[in-house]
Amino acid sequence: MSIIYSIDLIGTFVFAISGVMTGISKKFDIFGTLVLGFVTAIGGGTLRDMLTGALPVAWIQDINYVILIIAALPMVYLFQKQILKLRKTMFLFDSIGIGLFTVLGVQKTLALGLSPIICILMGAIGAVFGGVLRDTLSNEVPLIFRKEIYATACLLGGTIFYFLLQLAIPIYVAQSISIFIVILIRILAVRNHWSLNFNK
Amino acid sequence: MSIIYSIDLIGTFVFAISGVMTGISKKFDIFGTLVLGFVTAIGGGTLRDMLTGALPVAWIQDINYVILIIAALPMVYLFQKQILKLRKTMFLFDSIGIGLFTVLGVQKTLALGLSPIICILMGAIGAVFGGVLRDTLSNEVPLIFRKEIYATACLLGGTIFYFLLQLAIPIYVAQSISIFIVILIRILAVRNHWSLNFNK
Amino acid sequence: MSIIYSIDLIGTFVFAISGVMTGISKKFDIFGTLVLGFVTAIGGGTLRDMLTGALPVAWIQDINYVILIIAALPMVYLFQKQILKLRKTMFLFDSIGIGLFTVLGVQKTLALGLSPIICILMGAIGAVFGGVLRDTLSNEVPLIFRKEIYATACLLGGTIFYFLLQLAIPIYVAQSISIFIVILIRILAVRNHWSLNFNK
Repeated sequence: MSIIYSIDLIGTFVFAISGVMTGISKKFDIFGTLVLGFVTAIGGGTLRDMLTGALPVAWIQDINYVILIIAALPMVYLFQKQILKLRKTMFLFDSIGIGLFTVLGVQKTLALGLSPIICILMGAIGAVFGGVLRDTLSNEVPLIFRKEIYATACLLGGTIFYFLLQLAIPIYVAQSISIFIVILIRILAVRNHWSLNFNK
Repeated sequence: MSIIYSIDLIGTFVFAISGVMTGISKKFDIFGTLVLGFVTAIGGGTLRDMLTGALPVAWIQDINYVILIIAALPMVYLFQKQILKLRKTMFLFDSIGIGLFTVLGVQKTLALGLSPIICILMGAIGAVFGGVLRDTLSNEVPLIFRKEIYATACLLGGTIFYFLLQLAIPIYVAQSISIFIVILIRILAVRNHWSLNFNK
Repeated sequence: MSIIYSIDLIGTFVFAISGVMTGISKKFDIFGTLVLGFVTAIGGGTLRDMLTGALPVAWIQDINYVILIIAALPMVYLFQKQILKLRKTMFLFDSIGIGLFTVLGVQKTLALGLSPIICILMGAIGAVFGGVLRDTLSNEVPLIFRKEIYATACLLGGTIFYFLLQLAIPIYVAQSISIFIVILIRILAVRNHWSLNFNK
């Protein structure tokens, strides 16, 4: 659980950076930028917890999340150029983030006794909804609605995670495999321009 | 309650179809389209349940809703042309849907001991908020804010339902009358271009 | 608590008026306008209460809020011209509103045993999120993301309120000072065009 918790915090931090970068590129002021960082980092988990009644939501009870999100603001501002060069690293971190949030979400909601399909759905919602809120607040059609396989990677990863949990393997192996699969699908999808369009 | 439950599922299915049709017309990918179907079908009830603290929300505990919403995707994709021809049928189903969700919402929140005005309001929110979310996510000003009497039909139907409940008539009679009134107002409003605009 | 409650209702009423005015200027119909009034008036407190699990949300249990919000509609419609002339008065009331909602939010969440930083954050969310929802629903980039110091005033006022609570002064003194500081920062920020932009 300690490793998971660490990577969870890293994921939160990376999503916060992505939100802050959007805020700066949209010329939001400092507060607006911070809000976008927040929303991107905690939006998904918050919706998941509100839907399942796991209230108060997790980040309200653990100050580390808030500290990391606030820390993302000076980080991005000071190292703007370097971070833009690190785009590929960012993309990898983002993929790690959604992979981890998927697994965490599935695990957390299974523990509430909800049915598997719902749990996989909650895993995907927790992973991607932060980005949906970020785009809605900055007045864009959420990218997730137009882009390469993104939430689909979470749904697949969550499904695999659920079936791995039925086998007699240690949980951290199931977690690692599932997170890896989400990341792999994401990388392959972007590299090969996979999409799920109806037309053409 | 069994008839109500059946029509509730039908309402969910019809709203899912409306969301899926919007997604296809907006050229969202398959996942985005499915999300719009989901949001349209369960958005209203979810907000109502979150506001009143009836958590976890209903569809999380009953897999039938999720199955029906997912089923809407291939349905619309395969029968696109026929469904477009069925526009009037769709409109009728949609009206049945908001009528039923209004009555269900009022009944559910009265059972929580909330005051009548709040319950009628919750009935309307449960009926119409799915469409508001659908439009916001697809970057439109929610149609409900510009269109013919829509939520107003729910508020009127909910009010009538509340007063009928005070009379010594069987509950299913009160339900049927109220649902019928919502549908009737809706049909008359669209046919006669009724609206509540301030200017002219 | 009685004075606080009165000003809380006044704040709700003023925010409702601001939402209704937006709805009229956007040519929403009567229902859409009323919804905007609602959302602006209760959006912030609702999000705060949902995040912290204080459900059902407050306005659902106290009909006075709903009555005041509905009353805002004929008020604005009948006195449109006068209200537009009263812009400065409106601005002052709005500032009083966010000041009060900040203090109420901090106090309410501290009572739940949450950590101080979270409580100050919840105070600011309760004060400003209604306006964010109003702008998102009317398809604008939330003004708060572009404008003069607004939420920042709430964060500062909330922080000061928290520290004042640690001193041996009566709570109403701490409340009054903090509300006054939010109002003062707001007035100075608008008068002097203070902002927190990254560039220039």
